[in-house]
Amino acid sequence: MTLIVAQLSETELLARIFPRLHSGTSMLLGPGDDAAIIAAPDARTVISIDTQVQDKDFRLLWPNGSASSGFDVGWKAAAQNLSDINAMGAVATAMVISLTLPGPTPVSWVEEFAEGLSAATVALGAGQCSMAGGDLSGGNEIVVTVAVTGSLQGRQPVLRSGAKPGDRLAVCGNVGQAAAGWALQESPLDPARHTAAMAAAAQLFARPQPPLAAGPAAALAGASAMLDISDGLLRDAGRIGTASAVALDFDGQALQALAEKLRESANALGLDPLAWVLTGGEDHGLLCAFPASATLPAGFFEIGSVVSFESSATGLTVDGRNFEGASGGARGWDHFAV
Amino acid sequence: MTLIVAQLSETELLARIFPRLHSGTSMLLGPGDDAAIIAAPDARTVISIDTQVQDKDFRLLWPNGSASSGFDVGWKAAAQNLSDINAMGAVATAMVISLTLPGPTPVSWVEEFAEGLSAATVALGAGQCSMAGGDLSGGNEIVVTVAVTGSLQGRQPVLRSGAKPGDRLAVCGNVGQAAAGWALQESPLDPARHTAAMAAAAQLFARPQPPLAAGPAAALAGASAMLDISDGLLRDAGRIGTASAVALDFDGQALQALAEKLRESANALGLDPLAWVLTGGEDHGLLCAFPASATLPAGFFEIGSVVSFESSATGLTVDGRNFEGASGGARGWDHFAV
Repeated sequence: MTLIVAQLSETELLARIFPRLHSGTSMLLGPGDDAAIIAAPDARTVISIDTQVQDKDFRLLWPNGSASSGFDVGWKAAAQNLSDINAMGAVATAMVISLTLPGPTPVSWVEEFAEGLSAATVALGAGQCSMAGGDLSGGNEIVVTVAVTGSLQGRQPVLRSGAKPGDRLAVCGNVGQAAAGWALQESPLDPARHTAAMAAAAQLFARPQPPLAAGPAAALAGASAMLDISDGLLRDAGRIGTASAVALDFDGQALQALAEKLRESANALGLDPLAWVLTGGEDHGLLCAFPASATLPAGFFEIGSVVSFESSATGLTVDGRNFEGASGGARGWDHFAV
Repeated sequence: MTLIVAQLSETELLARIFPRLHSGTSMLLGPGDDAAIIAAPDARTVISIDTQVQDKDFRLLWPNGSASSGFDVGWKAAAQNLSDINAMGAVATAMVISLTLPGPTPVSWVEEFAEGLSAATVALGAGQCSMAGGDLSGGNEIVVTVAVTGSLQGRQPVLRSGAKPGDRLAVCGNVGQAAAGWALQESPLDPARHTAAMAAAAQLFARPQPPLAAGPAAALAGASAMLDISDGLLRDAGRIGTASAVALDFDGQALQALAEKLRESANALGLDPLAWVLTGGEDHGLLCAFPASATLPAGFFEIGSVVSFESSATGLTVDGRNFEGASGGARGWDHFAV
């Protein structure tokens, strides 16, 4: 008999969750009161919130027969939230967690969720970040919401709006791997037949690896604009373009180099890996603009340049020309698109 | 034709939400980047998170024929989150909001949600608090999660753990009104036949009125312990008892005085109003312990005293005796209880 959520009281379930939550150095008062208290040493708190919904953002059972474990969903919740803080040039200080759980959810799934959340936080390099509290609700589908706070450590935030013509455009972290992994999960292809590269893509979709040291490093290197690539390179690049009132010109060879890393997965599915590079989200890498004089920090890969909006036909170009033939076009992930 | 969420892109829906969100004085960077930035003047940030789930915490259509409007759900989201900050003796600084929305949700419902959230924040006295950002997801039922931050303004927080034998026990705000309102909503009784007191209870269930000035006032008056009565007086009192390792003795006459305010609703439904006083949640009043020497701030109503755990049979007593006959007993609201 699998123990399910409906068989425990809220207090009993919390007693299983709390010991599995990581306590970092930033927590002044932890779970157990009406609210937690977090250190904000430079008198500012960065804050963001992200949600995953069952059968929208993850599946308990995928078409290829694999499962999203509680550990995976907890890992991704941590990764996508920590990435939002990273993309401001900040370091995470705390998370508060809301879980909406159907009664039949196995208690072990919830325990593994807490373990995945904590494991990702430590493994990705955010060990100072504390799990500071949360809320439990019943519902008909699993909904996981995490709000995360961060500290700028006295630095200025790196916004989307600071890119200037002449800046170099660079990415850090994976681009398109999560999209390849998602496509593999949604395909009928047996995971036992995945090559190592394909298995890695599936793993990066389940457990993204945002480069958490890179956000503060980019800020220190003088990045003029930065954001988390969560909805796809083109869509997120468009956000920098719009916020900064500039256009972005990609280097076609650099995009092809990123696509080559996805070649095995693409061939197995008969798809174009460039589409994953351009429109795949959820890798939670960083897209940054740096002044031409800046030295790119370790891990950044140059993929183009910022140009004046007047000199660009569409705001986003490759080698000065409009995009052609990339399936998906300029659209990335939209939660309500049909 | 009602415009529904599925007919808009995420960007279009956000464009309808953002102008309806209140901007307070505490926001250093608002929505539109990867994260927001909030002022934390005393280098500490108080944080909490709360969720409402459709058909668990609210109904789009109630058995008595009335509806939870988007405005109501937004109001309650603000009220319950602001109350958590109040209960620490702090003032709210920001909210981040996650909305999980089924495609058929009317866009007007979402707009009204944002309006209710903002209206409650201002009307309840938290105008300094900013709506700092959020996340939209698709799903099969509406799930609303708000995380809220606050500032202690240099004060020490008032925890659940500081009550001492000899302290006076007092409440501020409504007790049992939301439970009465909920029972009326769940009953077949036509709202058109409600008396003024019954209509007020239904309104207080839909739009709770947490006494937001009272938390900081209680802290300044030297409160030794405090919490938000969200799950019912007995259950929440038990939390102070457990955290403080004390027992609580209620004044039977004071409890009856609170019950009398619910008499009309109780008579209409043939129920005992004392049960609502003891186990009704969601009014988001405060339960406080004050040293005997303290002057109770305006709005606080004395309902008993803190006694040593050794002198009490069960940890919670009335006039020194165990509770008897109160339906619901010592149990308040549990999200997973059958």
